Amino acid sequence: MTKNLEDITEANVSIIPLGGLGEFGLNMMVYETEDDLIVIDTGFMLPNSDMPGVDLIFPDIHYLVERQEKVRGILLTHGHEDHIGALAYVLRQLDVPVYGTQLTLAIASGRLREYGVLGKAQLNTIAPGDTVELGDFSAEFIHVTHSIPDSVAIALRTPVGVIVHTGDFKFDMTPVDRKLSDVQTLARLGAEGVLMLISDSTNAERPGQTPSERSIYGSIDNIFQKTEQKLFLCTFSSSLHRIQQFIDLANIHRRLVAVTGRSLINNVRTASELGYLNVNPDYLIDARDASLFKPHEVVILTTGSQGEPRSALALMALDDHAFLKVEPGDTVVMSARIIPGNEKSIGNVVNHLLRRGAKIYHERNADVHVSGHGSSEDLKLMLNLLQPKFFMPMHGEYQNLMRHAELAESVGVPSENIKVAEDGELIRLTPETCEVFGREGRSGRVLVDGKPEIELEDIVLRDRIQLSEDGILVPIIVLQSDTGNGKQQEDISADSEVLTKTGLNAGQIEIISRGFVYMDESEELIEEAKEITRRVIENLNDEQKHETEIVQDEIRGALRRFFSKQMQRTPLIFPVVMRV
Amino acid sequence: MTKNLEDITEANVSIIPLGGLGEFGLNMMVYETEDDLIVIDTGFMLPNSDMPGVDLIFPDIHYLVERQEKVRGILLTHGHEDHIGALAYVLRQLDVPVYGTQLTLAIASGRLREYGVLGKAQLNTIAPGDTVELGDFSAEFIHVTHSIPDSVAIALRTPVGVIVHTGDFKFDMTPVDRKLSDVQTLARLGAEGVLMLISDSTNAERPGQTPSERSIYGSIDNIFQKTEQKLFLCTFSSSLHRIQQFIDLANIHRRLVAVTGRSLINNVRTASELGYLNVNPDYLIDARDASLFKPHEVVILTTGSQGEPRSALALMALDDHAFLKVEPGDTVVMSARIIPGNEKSIGNVVNHLLRRGAKIYHERNADVHVSGHGSSEDLKLMLNLLQPKFFMPMHGEYQNLMRHAELAESVGVPSENIKVAEDGELIRLTPETCEVFGREGRSGRVLVDGKPEIELEDIVLRDRIQLSEDGILVPIIVLQSDTGNGKQQEDISADSEVLTKTGLNAGQIEIISRGFVYMDESEELIEEAKEITRRVIENLNDEQKHETEIVQDEIRGALRRFFSKQMQRTPLIFPVVMRV
Repeated sequence: MTKNLEDITEANVSIIPLGGLGEFGLNMMVYETEDDLIVIDTGFMLPNSDMPGVDLIFPDIHYLVERQEKVRGILLTHGHEDHIGALAYVLRQLDVPVYGTQLTLAIASGRLREYGVLGKAQLNTIAPGDTVELGDFSAEFIHVTHSIPDSVAIALRTPVGVIVHTGDFKFDMTPVDRKLSDVQTLARLGAEGVLMLISDSTNAERPGQTPSERSIYGSIDNIFQKTEQKLFLCTFSSSLHRIQQFIDLANIHRRLVAVTGRSLINNVRTASELGYLNVNPDYLIDARDASLFKPHEVVILTTGSQGEPRSALALMALDDHAFLKVEPGDTVVMSARIIPGNEKSIGNVVNHLLRRGAKIYHERNADVHVSGHGSSEDLKLMLNLLQPKFFMPMHGEYQNLMRHAELAESVGVPSENIKVAEDGELIRLTPETCEVFGREGRSGRVLVDGKPEIELEDIVLRDRIQLSEDGILVPIIVLQSDTGNGKQQEDISADSEVLTKTGLNAGQIEIISRGFVYMDESEELIEEAKEITRRVIENLNDEQKHETEIVQDEIRGALRRFFSKQMQRTPLIFPVVMRV
Repeated sequence: MTKNLEDITEANVSIIPLGGLGEFGLNMMVYETEDDLIVIDTGFMLPNSDMPGVDLIFPDIHYLVERQEKVRGILLTHGHEDHIGALAYVLRQLDVPVYGTQLTLAIASGRLREYGVLGKAQLNTIAPGDTVELGDFSAEFIHVTHSIPDSVAIALRTPVGVIVHTGDFKFDMTPVDRKLSDVQTLARLGAEGVLMLISDSTNAERPGQTPSERSIYGSIDNIFQKTEQKLFLCTFSSSLHRIQQFIDLANIHRRLVAVTGRSLINNVRTASELGYLNVNPDYLIDARDASLFKPHEVVILTTGSQGEPRSALALMALDDHAFLKVEPGDTVVMSARIIPGNEKSIGNVVNHLLRRGAKIYHERNADVHVSGHGSSEDLKLMLNLLQPKFFMPMHGEYQNLMRHAELAESVGVPSENIKVAEDGELIRLTPETCEVFGREGRSGRVLVDGKPEIELEDIVLRDRIQLSEDGILVPIIVLQSDTGNGKQQEDISADSEVLTKTGLNAGQIEIISRGFVYMDESEELIEEAKEITRRVIENLNDEQKHETEIVQDEIRGALRRFFSKQMQRTPLIFPVVMRV
């Protein structure tokens, strides 16, 4: 029986990825019926170096704001910033309930407090196994293993059938907290029938199965044994399973634990209070006191695994940290993924640490890191447990999504039932069909610089990029008429008699520049440019002189030709005409 | 017998790395006695994204310019840009003979011609096995295998003993041109006694032996067999062994070869003329004619393996190339190393090519690339053949140099005889000792933007970086006195009577900005800033008003506080005071 998509009596669910399909980070997915709308995850993304002066990137949420009366809730899969980092930004614009596990909400609360929205936030703690009714949707939370505890996948019962949204996951057979991925529930859902699976593609390009988090224990233990001086262990502040293993090993090897870095200190405290981290407070010391102990008596937990220039590790690498020092014989373990794009900054930190005489372990020379995302075989297992009719890959760049699509086909999902979509596309799902329609009008990225409410326009970013390429040159011309002081341009323009008397006086051309040439050493060049500007104005007739845009265009053109010929540089030239 | 370094009767050789020790690229090494100085290699480096608007980086050659009367020659090991790219820059400042193999000089000549120094350049072609006398030095050239043909290591006979400088090398047992590394000569030198080895560290961190260039032939052949539409083969323009294999396979699979990209076209022509590339001209077509043939009848050779935004491949990925198109069913092979720092731009190109429907092979998903640099076992073989007394690693970041030092120690070089130095350090070698002294005064990097003779000052680069972070804001204030038009500031300042009458007139404050806020949408903000500026000036007394620096400082301070509070942004604020 052929279904007609145009037939509005046909039940359907729209799926709109607002972020995370076509990039890493920014994860946000909308599920929508005629009456109700829910959102899974509200992540942010950190900018690349090709976005100068951008602090954060949020998904564009106009789609939600325009439909806010039907938004029934925000569901969070886990507490990583690429899934919760935009929650404060969203809650400032939308007043909707939020659902997440205890740890996820505890981590999210920190930032909500910081931005003053914690008070009004409607936070609802759920546990794996719980089901929440949200209008046309019923959401069941399913525990999965990942690099942060208390992670869930979500099974959505919708008017057209069951949709499973995995969040981030792997099938860790020996998780540090002994809480396995809930394969039983996934298998039951598969037996009952899953209409669509939407699954994490981060490691789709990796063969095999991702090793257990516990698999690094042995090599870290080995490093503890070999290290005779201070030991620095560096990881993400949210990698609590990793941190648990570090703390356990520190106890075994009788080293006190100093924690440095605001986010790490906060997470260790929060997770300990909630019971997600098992720490004996007697073994914790203040990082400022680390130097009071012998080098072999302490281990320092720190962030900075991506070479972030202001991180504790980067400061130590340059011997610029207020109270921590890396010295010959010390060991630094960078127990985290080298995120593509960060190789250079990480390399810089490694080089400087080596210059300080430290021994360095990282994922490329030792087994000190394992991913929290499933590889090809994990992804196939998820597909096989659920046996979905339709499949859509999420979380990743286009190449990861495509590879995940190939994996789905390899386990038997018909290729016509696999939809590779990207941010802002609208996918319409019925019991029989799944189609990708065109783009939604408003979707994309919001660049943020400074306070979170200040959005950065694309045009400003383009200007920054151009400024950074060749700098800026501002010629300033004061045009003066003989009709007396204080007379305004408008007055003069209306008076043809006065026009003939308008002109430059000596000393009334100034040229300033930044990022173009070093002005102290380029006096001649600037003098020549002033002379060119003077000639341009002298060659204008009086009518032209009164059209500011003409004056600007002529000066800009003449100077652009001059500098391009002299130096092959093309700064942003921005003439200013002042009239007195 | 203890030697005294201060004893000037003791023969010694100074070694000064001007580039390549502490970074990849910029390779340049100085060997110097009291009377004579020679240089091995003159490389450049491409900038990272943290150096906006920088086109190229050259080594600082003040050390050579100051000693030009004793510079006896520049010796080139091979034709890669990180070894010859700064030759034109050096020859513009130094008139010295250059020695290199036929292919190396042919490739170098292109750039020398471009920069007008080919006419005066003294180019001397040498062949492997030749020896050249250069004052106190005698240089013997030794063939080594690398990713470009006609590469040599150099054995320097000096007053203190033999120094071997490897250049780039690997021990390829089945080289495409059948010319093996000259192990016999290296072994003979080892038997005679080598005082010091200075060796390539690029792949010191890789275990095992680097596979033969020929090892990729099978997988490329396989891709040819599977590809039913157009085949794009992307590599570096200098990878002539790779290009030879591509051309051989194209012949076997009856595809015509179209070459695109200026450097690739030039290198294919030059190498063919000199006999380093075996191409049947009947099988070459103009890339503009590629569309005249059926897709399975052509293979397109192209550059752009690093995702360079203006490369042919990047343009094709965006469907923006003038005459080449990537279409569904086409295959693209990126047969080159993913250079650290380029992951993001390469990833972008791959994503876009996938969106065009192409199949992509790169070094991470297929055996389509092999390095031209020796791995750990190659490096150990070099050490064992030469059995040097002293060892210094070159070519690489600090971590690569350190790893190479560990390898040297593992094959028996005493750790006190291993010297890890960096750019600008001075190493003094006697028959018995090798010591690293302090830094040479003038060494470092020359940043180039625009024409090669235009050096970019560090301060300009810093300005560019700051501009790119938060943009620039230029408040312009016209201060006017009532003493009549055209009277100069100097006149006014000298006349205390007039001081009291100096002030602002309406409309004489202008604020422009770029890269800070979008001015069309920030009128209110700018108006407020103008008002603040006005108030600052009104609050100054008349003496202050005549001190331009005071006026500027006060305005800068007030506006910085305002924008920092309003937006948490700190643009470069650059007030201009004009006086009429």
